[in-house]
Amino acid sequence: MEHQQIIFSNAIPEAIESILKELDFNKAVIITDVNTHQFAFPKIADSPAVKGVPCIIIKSGDTYKTMETATTVWKQLEVAGATRRTVVINLGGGVVTDLGGFAASVFKRGLRFINIPTTLLGAVDAAIGGKTGVNFNGLKNEIGVFNEACAVVVSTLFFDTLPPTELKSGYAEMLKHGLLSDRQYFADLLNHDILDGDREHLLGLLKRSVIIKRDIVAADPHEQGLRRALNLGHTAGHAFESLAMKRMEPVPHGYAVAWGLVVELILSHMIYKFPSDILHTVADFVRDNYGTFPITCDDYDTLLALMRHDKKSLGGEINCSLLADVGDIKLGTIVSSDDIKASLDIYRDLLQ
Amino acid sequence: MEHQQIIFSNAIPEAIESILKELDFNKAVIITDVNTHQFAFPKIADSPAVKGVPCIIIKSGDTYKTMETATTVWKQLEVAGATRRTVVINLGGGVVTDLGGFAASVFKRGLRFINIPTTLLGAVDAAIGGKTGVNFNGLKNEIGVFNEACAVVVSTLFFDTLPPTELKSGYAEMLKHGLLSDRQYFADLLNHDILDGDREHLLGLLKRSVIIKRDIVAADPHEQGLRRALNLGHTAGHAFESLAMKRMEPVPHGYAVAWGLVVELILSHMIYKFPSDILHTVADFVRDNYGTFPITCDDYDTLLALMRHDKKSLGGEINCSLLADVGDIKLGTIVSSDDIKASLDIYRDLLQ
Repeated sequence: MEHQQIIFSNAIPEAIESILKELDFNKAVIITDVNTHQFAFPKIADSPAVKGVPCIIIKSGDTYKTMETATTVWKQLEVAGATRRTVVINLGGGVVTDLGGFAASVFKRGLRFINIPTTLLGAVDAAIGGKTGVNFNGLKNEIGVFNEACAVVVSTLFFDTLPPTELKSGYAEMLKHGLLSDRQYFADLLNHDILDGDREHLLGLLKRSVIIKRDIVAADPHEQGLRRALNLGHTAGHAFESLAMKRMEPVPHGYAVAWGLVVELILSHMIYKFPSDILHTVADFVRDNYGTFPITCDDYDTLLALMRHDKKSLGGEINCSLLADVGDIKLGTIVSSDDIKASLDIYRDLLQ
Repeated sequence: MEHQQIIFSNAIPEAIESILKELDFNKAVIITDVNTHQFAFPKIADSPAVKGVPCIIIKSGDTYKTMETATTVWKQLEVAGATRRTVVINLGGGVVTDLGGFAASVFKRGLRFINIPTTLLGAVDAAIGGKTGVNFNGLKNEIGVFNEACAVVVSTLFFDTLPPTELKSGYAEMLKHGLLSDRQYFADLLNHDILDGDREHLLGLLKRSVIIKRDIVAADPHEQGLRRALNLGHTAGHAFESLAMKRMEPVPHGYAVAWGLVVELILSHMIYKFPSDILHTVADFVRDNYGTFPITCDDYDTLLALMRHDKKSLGGEINCSLLADVGDIKLGTIVSSDDIKASLDIYRDLLQ
């Protein structure tokens, strides 16, 4: 795999120009969604790099991350005269970079694409790492490919158009990256004020986070080993997210990850003696910033069933990536139901 | 890219067993079409390697090489409980290996697949080389990916279920491979009786042809250079094929390629002094085995327009891969309208 170019800059049009200058291409096409087109796109629309580039605008939201939407994108790529030498520019959050990356990757057996994430969650998660796809038949990301953007432009330019919950949601993935790497970066993250901190400082923290993810992905692009470390917090997190859906009170993905991180650090402490002082610091930070997801012991069986059906679990056993310390990753640990129940008890003690 | 395993054998079940033994997998699923299931599948259905493996049966014919058919395949893969560790076995001609390869490549971001071509054209063309895809919005192979089968089993086992036109169609692609490689192999091809020759001898010739294609693809998997050599005969051939469609008298793909080879060898002679004795030998072989595609000078403008719209042509110029001699490839030659017209005059002299 060629090395992916990642540019950290709030001068987006200049970044686009410098990327396109290196590519042998005949045409650029932007894919974006209705919200992004209304709130983020105007910030770059007047620049020469973007003016006159055709825009394909999809509907906003995960509900529209479907094959039907991909079909409308392909038809519009044809109308725009896209050939194999055309470059697609995905401007938006995770839905746009996931769907736009997939649509580009299979159009005429593969157009190159550039990701310009407009959300914090998109920047630290979806836009990097080559996972593209659409939901299908009620299953998330069921159809897709592993294919990296040829370049990604990471910025904080659009963040003032975002609601606070989105910023916090993205920050939870950054906390995860901190836990996977080193104590100093992790401490820097805990010392930053998510909502009121200055944006230049945030761009620095974001850069660190993106590089941690990029390096993990580069070591294991198809998720056969190390990449599973990125699932830290997600086994319990997805279960919380699904339970919230069942209750008809959905929670933001990043919030569920934050609560999931607490549960999985508790398991890490129980099984691998992950330091309890760090566990308590994380629990405090999560409670202060994300509140708590209310559960009782009546929810335990539902949560266990959800964890057993997680994509990462095989043959009904619950499989987690855990930590023995910050940066000391224990991949693919099979966790017993009793340990999960004990960790949920402690989660309730710590957060509720 | 990992090197693809190609097994040349008429002992298909044993070949499947030996391939699966090397793979870490949890389940196999067969994709085939109605015709293949009726005529070819019974030849292997009773073997232990195949018995009990779920079969997804799609409709036969290029008309059904669509996203709608892929959608039914994905739903049946879900019903069959396919996971990322499942292996798909594509049993059929080009439609099955193209569509099955695509469906597998994007299901859960990529299942591995094995191709078992049941036609000669499939064996020498579609099953090897990693081009997968479906037709979309009236355009051939508009949506797809480059992704190689992890293994291909090449045999002549199913050929007695095929009509003579299919065998001849596939043989035209073998002639093309011969022209791209060396005089001895090419002479062997001309000396073989397509319909009555013995099948063991054909398997030997087929093996040679598959290896020529494999080596060209390995040098240029994404068709940015050498792989375009495989388009020899196809610029004129596709124009003949499309003209036949316009006349409502469709011709088999391989027949159009055979006639296209004659036109492009004439151009090769005109531009690069390709030896005229070989050109005449090819013209005789093509006339004897494929007859001729009747054209008059009234068809020239239509044929030129079709060639200008060929995928390989850029900016309205007609682009061909030609030869200076057998095995001496001249990629991406821009050919003038006058030269095309002159070559069509000579084609009519030689074949009509």
